[in-house]
Amino acid sequence: MPDEFAFIAALRAIATHPAAAGLTDDTAQLDLPAGRLILTSDTMVAGVHFRPHDPPDAIGWKLAAVNLSDLAAKGAKPIGCLLNYALSGEAAWDHSFLAGLNEALVHYRMPLLGGDTVAMPQGSARSFTLTALGGGQASTPLRSGAQPGDGLWVTGRIGGAGFSPDGEPHDLARYLRPTPRLSEGQAIAPFATAMMDVSDGLLIDARRLAETSGVAIAIDLDAIPLALPDLDPIAAATAGDDYELLFTLPNGTNPPAPATRVGDVGVGSGLHLRRARRSVPLPASLGYCHGA
Amino acid sequence: MPDEFAFIAALRAIATHPAAAGLTDDTAQLDLPAGRLILTSDTMVAGVHFRPHDPPDAIGWKLAAVNLSDLAAKGAKPIGCLLNYALSGEAAWDHSFLAGLNEALVHYRMPLLGGDTVAMPQGSARSFTLTALGGGQASTPLRSGAQPGDGLWVTGRIGGAGFSPDGEPHDLARYLRPTPRLSEGQAIAPFATAMMDVSDGLLIDARRLAETSGVAIAIDLDAIPLALPDLDPIAAATAGDDYELLFTLPNGTNPPAPATRVGDVGVGSGLHLRRARRSVPLPASLGYCHGA
Repeated sequence: MPDEFAFIAALRAIATHPAAAGLTDDTAQLDLPAGRLILTSDTMVAGVHFRPHDPPDAIGWKLAAVNLSDLAAKGAKPIGCLLNYALSGEAAWDHSFLAGLNEALVHYRMPLLGGDTVAMPQGSARSFTLTALGGGQASTPLRSGAQPGDGLWVTGRIGGAGFSPDGEPHDLARYLRPTPRLSEGQAIAPFATAMMDVSDGLLIDARRLAETSGVAIAIDLDAIPLALPDLDPIAAATAGDDYELLFTLPNGTNPPAPATRVGDVGVGSGLHLRRARRSVPLPASLGYCHGA
Repeated sequence: MPDEFAFIAALRAIATHPAAAGLTDDTAQLDLPAGRLILTSDTMVAGVHFRPHDPPDAIGWKLAAVNLSDLAAKGAKPIGCLLNYALSGEAAWDHSFLAGLNEALVHYRMPLLGGDTVAMPQGSARSFTLTALGGGQASTPLRSGAQPGDGLWVTGRIGGAGFSPDGEPHDLARYLRPTPRLSEGQAIAPFATAMMDVSDGLLIDARRLAETSGVAIAIDLDAIPLALPDLDPIAAATAGDDYELLFTLPNGTNPPAPATRVGDVGVGSGLHLRRARRSVPLPASLGYCHGA
């Protein structure tokens, strides 16, 4: 059990926010003003959400980033987080994971407030959960608010974290250390009718937005801002791990942060693709489907 | 993936609180008045925190109960929770787990607000995380507040969930479906100088309380309220899974909920045992040590 004590000591060194009480209690105590709390929690499993050979510091960073990306998509400001960690049995791996996680927590100012550390039986896949709390705005854009007539927009560039035929990501840094679009999300949220992050692929996530809003969404493949100039738009738009923001704005409203208009919201249902103004069929797979 | 869709449909049927937005978003949105938020999160792993053959509905109940017990120990009132669930690969097992979890959530009024559902690679141990939010009182008793001169008290009876030599719990219902002491905790919190729940054993948890408060704690073995009359006090006080509340009150203060005085807080450090007013040595193991 000495590995566990050392890991908890390392957690305590990170958890310096008063609400964490030095991780000496079973709970965190957080005094909050009245307002809207945004809650999100993501679990990452080896072999499902990351490759077992990915560097542990990048996996730690990514666990923070994917939760921060969910806060970003609601225009929320990070308040704090809880880490549920399954010890790997390799102390150096655990400490490297924690260093990468902490880099993201410091960079995006999301203090570690608590959580739980457990040992897993030998042979189990590594899995980790982070639960993030954010302070929301008066108006929170959900997946459900898109209206016929809205424009569909996306921040940044799409497809960089996708895999080339040689089995490696096009842009390794982007795959390993995604950037949650927190400031963009905070700027966009007051104007967006709907917003979500692109985690599983632009097409699959756009279809989810259409379904939840009860609208049709048409995407112009020619308009998708590609991370690399020679990417195929369909391949880019079905690759996961972009962590850009996908949102809808009333027609005529310009986004308050750099973004590209990639389509339109209409009456009806489902996802529709266009290329050179002509309808094209949907690909067999719209993205990465590993969970809800 | 049909199992996953059915499971998520079952989650949606449970998550009826408006903040859950029908689990159609990546986040929950919770409007809160100003005040103190109490946060806790527990992960349970098969073979570590429960027996793989325990009934799945009891494991679901227990995951809720252990988190509720942490809220109880701070005098907090449940607000809501997030579930991070690893699908077992057996749909009936998953649904039974969820039914037991939901029973506890309904009974203790802690709405399900969100979380994450993942698939684990074959052969991995089942593990589940619940993160609970509670509304705290102005004064939150931590582990750190015990003062020399205080009395040490415990609610309920101790040792019932311990294992007899035949490898079965003395009181199976108590082991499978622990009762979080929410109303007791809310009544006691304004008066307690320190409070925690007894999850790993009365002795190990009392020593943690002594360490965090920087005091000595003496326990009278004769005073421990035993769950069964023929239990050995040392065996009872080193068995885990009681989920009773252990707390300290200024000398002369009577507890506002049924409880038994089991010892005293003094100047110094460490845990000390007495029997018939004479000091007795500590046993080799003070309780169940499976994590922090």
